[in-house]
Amino acid sequence: MDKATVGGLVAGIALLLLSIMIAPGSSFAAFIDYPSLAVVVGGAIAATFIAFPIGTVLQVHKVILKSFFPKQQSLTPVIHQLVEFAELARREGILALEGRTDDIEDPFILLGIQMAVDGTDTELMEGILRAEMDAIVNRHKTGKTLMDTVGRYAPAFGMIGTLMGLIIMLGNMDDPEAIGPGMAVALITTLYGAIVSNLFFLPFADKLAFYSKREMEVREVIVRGLVAIQDGDNPRVLEQKLMTMLPPSERAKADQNAEAAAA
Amino acid sequence: MDKATVGGLVAGIALLLLSIMIAPGSSFAAFIDYPSLAVVVGGAIAATFIAFPIGTVLQVHKVILKSFFPKQQSLTPVIHQLVEFAELARREGILALEGRTDDIEDPFILLGIQMAVDGTDTELMEGILRAEMDAIVNRHKTGKTLMDTVGRYAPAFGMIGTLMGLIIMLGNMDDPEAIGPGMAVALITTLYGAIVSNLFFLPFADKLAFYSKREMEVREVIVRGLVAIQDGDNPRVLEQKLMTMLPPSERAKADQNAEAAAA
Amino acid sequence: MDKATVGGLVAGIALLLLSIMIAPGSSFAAFIDYPSLAVVVGGAIAATFIAFPIGTVLQVHKVILKSFFPKQQSLTPVIHQLVEFAELARREGILALEGRTDDIEDPFILLGIQMAVDGTDTELMEGILRAEMDAIVNRHKTGKTLMDTVGRYAPAFGMIGTLMGLIIMLGNMDDPEAIGPGMAVALITTLYGAIVSNLFFLPFADKLAFYSKREMEVREVIVRGLVAIQDGDNPRVLEQKLMTMLPPSERAKADQNAEAAAA
Amino acid sequence: MDKATVGGLVAGIALLLLSIMIAPGSSFAAFIDYPSLAVVVGGAIAATFIAFPIGTVLQVHKVILKSFFPKQQSLTPVIHQLVEFAELARREGILALEGRTDDIEDPFILLGIQMAVDGTDTELMEGILRAEMDAIVNRHKTGKTLMDTVGRYAPAFGMIGTLMGLIIMLGNMDDPEAIGPGMAVALITTLYGAIVSNLFFLPFADKLAFYSKREMEVREVIVRGLVAIQDGDNPRVLEQKLMTMLPPSERAKADQNAEAAAA
Amino acid sequence: MDKATVGGLVAGIALLLLSIMIAPGSSFAAFIDYPSLAVVVGGAIAATFIAFPIGTVLQVHKVILKSFFPKQQSLTPVIHQLVEFAELARREGILALEGRTDDIEDPFILLGIQMAVDGTDTELMEGILRAEMDAIVNRHKTGKTLMDTVGRYAPAFGMIGTLMGLIIMLGNMDDPEAIGPGMAVALITTLYGAIVSNLFFLPFADKLAFYSKREMEVREVIVRGLVAIQDGDNPRVLEQKLMTMLPPSERAKADQNAEAAAA
Repeated sequence: MDKATVGGLVAGIALLLLSIMIAPGSSFAAFIDYPSLAVVVGGAIAATFIAFPIGTVLQVHKVILKSFFPKQQSLTPVIHQLVEFAELARREGILALEGRTDDIEDPFILLGIQMAVDGTDTELMEGILRAEMDAIVNRHKTGKTLMDTVGRYAPAFGMIGTLMGLIIMLGNMDDPEAIGPGMAVALITTLYGAIVSNLFFLPFADKLAFYSKREMEVREVIVRGLVAIQDGDNPRVLEQKLMTMLPPSERAKADQNAEAAAA
Repeated sequence: MDKATVGGLVAGIALLLLSIMIAPGSSFAAFIDYPSLAVVVGGAIAATFIAFPIGTVLQVHKVILKSFFPKQQSLTPVIHQLVEFAELARREGILALEGRTDDIEDPFILLGIQMAVDGTDTELMEGILRAEMDAIVNRHKTGKTLMDTVGRYAPAFGMIGTLMGLIIMLGNMDDPEAIGPGMAVALITTLYGAIVSNLFFLPFADKLAFYSKREMEVREVIVRGLVAIQDGDNPRVLEQKLMTMLPPSERAKADQNAEAAAA
Repeated sequence: MDKATVGGLVAGIALLLLSIMIAPGSSFAAFIDYPSLAVVVGGAIAATFIAFPIGTVLQVHKVILKSFFPKQQSLTPVIHQLVEFAELARREGILALEGRTDDIEDPFILLGIQMAVDGTDTELMEGILRAEMDAIVNRHKTGKTLMDTVGRYAPAFGMIGTLMGLIIMLGNMDDPEAIGPGMAVALITTLYGAIVSNLFFLPFADKLAFYSKREMEVREVIVRGLVAIQDGDNPRVLEQKLMTMLPPSERAKADQNAEAAAA
Repeated sequence: MDKATVGGLVAGIALLLLSIMIAPGSSFAAFIDYPSLAVVVGGAIAATFIAFPIGTVLQVHKVILKSFFPKQQSLTPVIHQLVEFAELARREGILALEGRTDDIEDPFILLGIQMAVDGTDTELMEGILRAEMDAIVNRHKTGKTLMDTVGRYAPAFGMIGTLMGLIIMLGNMDDPEAIGPGMAVALITTLYGAIVSNLFFLPFADKLAFYSKREMEVREVIVRGLVAIQDGDNPRVLEQKLMTMLPPSERAKADQNAEAAAA
Repeated sequence: MDKATVGGLVAGIALLLLSIMIAPGSSFAAFIDYPSLAVVVGGAIAATFIAFPIGTVLQVHKVILKSFFPKQQSLTPVIHQLVEFAELARREGILALEGRTDDIEDPFILLGIQMAVDGTDTELMEGILRAEMDAIVNRHKTGKTLMDTVGRYAPAFGMIGTLMGLIIMLGNMDDPEAIGPGMAVALITTLYGAIVSNLFFLPFADKLAFYSKREMEVREVIVRGLVAIQDGDNPRVLEQKLMTMLPPSERAKADQNAEAAAA
């Protein structure tokens, strides 16, 4: 689970609730208005349905869940596995990898190893793996755009709701005492729109973009590793090459582990 | 028909009507003002006529209709047909494809097959098909820009209408009772502009962009397939290559079908 | 003349005038304020002079006129002429084109044919024609940016005028009756800025961009045609290649004409 | 001196002063507030110092001066000089150029000619000249970004000043007569921010970008010319090539001059 | 320490405090509201946690510190060291560099020299150094985006706080005397958001981008120098090439030093 997403959400919501609680003359009741919520959230969802094909919008819950449970993969073990496979392939031939397919958890590595074992041409294998990567990037982009779209339409429907509230209020100015509360209710939709957008969907979109980039870095390492294995590259050189793609902090750790293992 | 477009529109409009209905002291009459509608919609249309050549603007209804009835083409049958043609061309020569032209519904595939049968040079054929694709992409882009332009000018004319209403109201402040309703009417154009933009034209533009991208993916598969057929590529390798362009969900389905067919 | 530009402008202006006429309690006089017009239009022009070199700003009337009288060139006759020249050059040699230079209206085609007749190297000829195209594109871009700049500064000076009006009004609050009209006058500059920008300069910029793109498509066809003529390409293949650059609607028409001519 | 910059500034300022003068009930005093000026200009400068290294910000006056005194270089004499050098180099060898270095005003041409005379390898010479061009472009970009940054932070500090003024005013509502003037003063910072941005820094940034582009076109001609000289290209072909980079208006003039010279 | 960052911050804050001090009827107390500060800063931090992985957000203090203490490296000594190494490698062979590794402070140069001494293939060495540079650029970009994100969410939560304040105020309009101060408090969050964004995080992001670009220029020089050393290039040509990457001002200084050293 992504602790930052959960912590940020809990902290942000708690902060807003707390600031309502301690404000003199305030009450939670003044901030709850179900029709306003319906206009903002319902309107944003309606616009999102018009903006995307139905199959895409119905994945929205999966996309949101991904902000909480991202697919995190550490680079170091991936590199170790690839280097190990490269050693095995060099020592006993590429077909020896067939006996190791049960150890592979990542379906992307599995696909590559199976193609290598099946004798698929290196270029074709790389082409297929890169097409797969493009497809994943496209799916990630659609997910991010979905979040951005909700985050863009929510404030728009917040403004639409406020305009509607103001028009109703301005048409009923006989009772001066009702003006204040009428305007307060009108403003609630703008508030809802701003919160839905800035505490939920826009940050979700940012986080998805971040994880997508990181996942693609791992896949890039895998593709380069698999190509090197099939080309029969030297496992030491391969390790050195792939290690440069590690962030420096992880690299230091990996080096220590390597030394510890060598000792 | 695109259910998401229809559903989103119906839900969005129903939501706004409902929220007017249940608001205390409100009435539909307060939200209907024909001159305001004329300023927002008419102004946005006038600006769009100035912004585009007349031939393009007169296609606007076709572009809007495309958000409701998109040209949807499934990739799997297209790939099957191309692989089938590749087998036929390999077995009986490329001229054997001539007898199959009646089975081809897609005019784009038909154009390619006819060029192949006519003995057009592969490079020229690919050039012509890609020029065709560029022309389609350009037409799609113009359609999307048309929607975006209306969606951009509608709120601008909403603001223009509101400013005009405010200026009229501020010049007639003798009757304090008229101020509220006058301002309400002034705000209606801004409301109309926001709705026209955020519930209609901007989401339409998003959807058109989505479908355009998908249609181009299908065309890309077709061009690669036709080039491979004319080059006499192995139908199995061709199938494998084209399959990588399927989204994973469809791919799984296609595999099951293939196994079922093989069984 | 571009009917869409004229029609859109007339319709947009008529719509605004009409909506003033039918609004109760309104008068044209309330919307006319010459100093406000001077601040918005004068300010936008002053900022544009600072933003561009003097030679460029002084072309502004020509650029505006281009939105009304665009240089429209149909692709079909251009292609026919190029194919005809290709046939002539193939039959009687490239020097035979010299006798046809009087029939050429487009100075761009003329430049190319003269270079071909003079025996200019194909590569140099293409380089010179493309440099010419780049220069035209640059001039078009400057024109579009000029319109965009006026359309960007007009609302800014509208806001500046409104702020000035508000400051004057707020400093003279002794007479409560003057507040309304004072604020009305203050808002007029914002209204002017919005109209100048959204009914004139921004749509002008859009239209210029559209025509520029279309003109460049014609030039691209010409350059490819001239290169093919000098390379002695087959006129039939050339026609087929150039025809792919026609929009489908024109292509159908061109085909019918060709068949009619053949019949 | 750039007449458009000076004229635009003078006209814009005069227009604003005039519109204050003729407005009934207005006075210059109402628009002058030194603390407001300090918040807007001082705040924008402070933010710019934080945004750029100190060495860059301290060049700001030079950058502003460049909007008034741009480095203008006409292309035609540059082309003539380069063609003349090409003829000399062809007739008497490249070393003959050494005697002409005193005639060269532009240090960029001088650098190239000296490298040519010193026998620097053509590729290295082009590399050095292009590195020089990149460095100039980078400096120009920094200058433009500096202007854009001030033009972006000035309205932000205008808004900050207005919020501060409003908060002070709203906390002192005992005297209703003070509300109007208090709000007037609060709005002055927003007015200042809008003027500083839209009449000064944003148009300055536009103009700098325009001149930078033009200067780079001249340098591009020089680099191509110097490379051609060192490669011993035909001076006629060189002239023809470089002439295509002239705008059509200058080209016509250059042709007339050439004919006059030939007559 | 970056004097511009410190000076800009001190001046900006002093300016705002001073303008509060001299404003009649104002007091610092009117501008201090801890719950408002909590909503703006806390909300922006919460949104940033949701937008980034936890590891990245926890580096925020390091990123901010970098705006104050940037890693500044002068190009001239780097070039001198590289040219010196090139001379040594040419005279005594590349292994002679091993004795000099203690003089190298920059770990990036050290890494390259060690690879050169170890006999790493030039292409692999350049690949590893460039991968290292990409990793650094990525880290810099993340830091800049982090600052931009806080600078983007702070005004959003400022607006959210103001809306909440207005809703509370509008619901308690019994006491007309409380309206002014209530609204003043409501506006404070917008003011805080604008200051946090425009005086702190957005300028921090600008400065980080500037330093990142400069650091990458230094690394580019180092990579080119190391490759030239391993390729055994002429030290004079190398110096000339690297010198073109110096800004003109530093170049003049470097030339004078060189002459002084030669004298």
